[in-house]
Amino acid sequence: MTLDDFYAIIPAGGVGTRLWPLSRKARPKFLFDLLGQGQTMIQSTFARLASICGPEHVAVSTGAQHVDAVRQQLPHLGEDAVFAEPIPRDSTAAIALATAVLARRHGDQIVVGSFAADHVVRDEGAFTMSVRQAVAAARAGYVATIGIAASRPSTAFGYIHQGRSLAEDVPDAPDARLVTEFVEKPDAATAQAYLATGEYRWNAGMFVMRADVVLGCLQRYKPDLYEAVTTIAQAWDQGLEPRQAAMDQEWAGIEKIAFDYAVAEPLSAAGGVAVVPGGFGWDDIGDFNSVAALLPSSNRQNIKILGDSDQVSYLDSAGDVVVPAAGRAIALLGVNDMVVVDTPDALLIAPRSRSQEVKDMVSKLSEDGQENIL
Amino acid sequence: MTLDDFYAIIPAGGVGTRLWPLSRKARPKFLFDLLGQGQTMIQSTFARLASICGPEHVAVSTGAQHVDAVRQQLPHLGEDAVFAEPIPRDSTAAIALATAVLARRHGDQIVVGSFAADHVVRDEGAFTMSVRQAVAAARAGYVATIGIAASRPSTAFGYIHQGRSLAEDVPDAPDARLVTEFVEKPDAATAQAYLATGEYRWNAGMFVMRADVVLGCLQRYKPDLYEAVTTIAQAWDQGLEPRQAAMDQEWAGIEKIAFDYAVAEPLSAAGGVAVVPGGFGWDDIGDFNSVAALLPSSNRQNIKILGDSDQVSYLDSAGDVVVPAAGRAIALLGVNDMVVVDTPDALLIAPRSRSQEVKDMVSKLSEDGQENIL
Repeated sequence: MTLDDFYAIIPAGGVGTRLWPLSRKARPKFLFDLLGQGQTMIQSTFARLASICGPEHVAVSTGAQHVDAVRQQLPHLGEDAVFAEPIPRDSTAAIALATAVLARRHGDQIVVGSFAADHVVRDEGAFTMSVRQAVAAARAGYVATIGIAASRPSTAFGYIHQGRSLAEDVPDAPDARLVTEFVEKPDAATAQAYLATGEYRWNAGMFVMRADVVLGCLQRYKPDLYEAVTTIAQAWDQGLEPRQAAMDQEWAGIEKIAFDYAVAEPLSAAGGVAVVPGGFGWDDIGDFNSVAALLPSSNRQNIKILGDSDQVSYLDSAGDVVVPAAGRAIALLGVNDMVVVDTPDALLIAPRSRSQEVKDMVSKLSEDGQENIL
Repeated sequence: MTLDDFYAIIPAGGVGTRLWPLSRKARPKFLFDLLGQGQTMIQSTFARLASICGPEHVAVSTGAQHVDAVRQQLPHLGEDAVFAEPIPRDSTAAIALATAVLARRHGDQIVVGSFAADHVVRDEGAFTMSVRQAVAAARAGYVATIGIAASRPSTAFGYIHQGRSLAEDVPDAPDARLVTEFVEKPDAATAQAYLATGEYRWNAGMFVMRADVVLGCLQRYKPDLYEAVTTIAQAWDQGLEPRQAAMDQEWAGIEKIAFDYAVAEPLSAAGGVAVVPGGFGWDDIGDFNSVAALLPSSNRQNIKILGDSDQVSYLDSAGDVVVPAAGRAIALLGVNDMVVVDTPDALLIAPRSRSQEVKDMVSKLSEDGQENIL
């Protein structure tokens, strides 16, 4: 099975507020090497997808202010493969515009797949196998998602409830199943119950679908959004001026809505969504606690260091997450289970257990008039 | 009573290891404004003493590497009023050399007083009154010390046990008493017992004495040190070359011993030491906990900030000591009772309760090969 008809779209949007001060509005988390792997998140994502469909089949959808940084980090990204958004309009608009433009260029039987710029995938071979099954299901007319094997009862992710097997309908996707329901982030007890049934998987927001199928869904579920995006797509490759004029006219008025709500949920109720299993070691690096969980342990004290470990000295300290990103020495004396993020213009200190509340700290900094470091 | 015969010596020696990374080997604590008063410790000390005996009667004894910084901070310090030590030889050598040189210049009936460069004195008027009584006792032939009213059972200071009143012997020092004993830093129970008796005061290491008296003591108790210092003092004002030659020959071989042990303790046993009370609000800023205790409280959370408080934002945090000395924003989320010292090349984080152990952290940094930031 070749994947010549497959195009990957990378929505690179999230600011990553809970990863402040590493992640900033002006320089979001996908531009950083959050796991110390020698590649930024978007570089890893691009490489992973380019190895499946070739670099010329990968596009990036991002904020206009990040285009230069994205192009600098992705030298193999095609000239026409960037969709710059003057203001963010959420994932439905991003996926719809890229799909509509690609369909005009390559025909509406192409399969597009959307994969966030800031996710971690451990096993690239397994990821490729999942994508291949998703593409097969997409060719058969399904909107296909990849359901991540839930390794813990996480309350940070939405879940996918799996139904009957689609192996007979789609021979090239033997593990595909129908999605009976997408469910929101559950509480801990509900998450535990989901895991016990064996019927639920994490929703990683990865969607693979034929262009005509998804555009048809949009026309049905979100006609205004569909019309606006179609207008822009018609102008897109007519030159910079028509493109700009169409964007100026249509973009700001487009509804801000996540693809899950606009398409995946209503379509699943109509039996149009397939899920293929993803067992490739996935994570969404949402906060410094996730960063810590993904960094290798390199000392007895389980102090996770993202950066040059020679810059960190510690005494009677354990379990900390330290980011020495300012080129300075960091000395920890009796400091346990804390997050210390040291950047040239801002320093954050917090307990690991409050990693999620870093977004509240960012709000406080905004109140304190510290916008310039956010 | 005039004080024309009184000369003040400021030994500026201690590195202040427990105040790292603010205090450094190359820039010790006396060169810093540790209380945010707009004056460094040595500037406050100089001003306090100069107001008593005139700036031309104040000398500083310090490491050769600190002479330039000291002169820069003390523009009114006399040309011949600096005693530069190529290597530290402790307080007896520092006091002995300055006294011997001053005695050759001004006669051995002058009174010299030694006051550390890094102590805090709240009430300068009360300090002056104590010094005047100490000078009177010194003129009468006593080595006089100032015994600080103990405000708490501190285990960080040595204590002075007071004996009979000397009011009849020294009419100008009505509150002077004989010292029966100097005692080492006690444990908490002993310190509590001392306070209960009302007979003990803190030893702040301030000594006031006639030059001939202290030089006589040195000749008796430490003859080798006395000989070496006398040799240097004879050469001191003969020009830079003879001075340098004498220092090269004698200084390194001088015994390293604190003045308390070399003179004050043996002389007190012989009934030669007087103590006058000091009730002027004194502290030795030994660690960041002392810094915190001395800084004014300016917010409900009792977060003490040494520096620009606009640089510190906090959420659900209290009781911290923060030194924003790197010009960066510091964000504290759920951080309680911690010390955070932020300098351009080094960051320290520790609980306040472990402030004393910062010296161990410095040893660890030395082991870790971080000598360049110590």
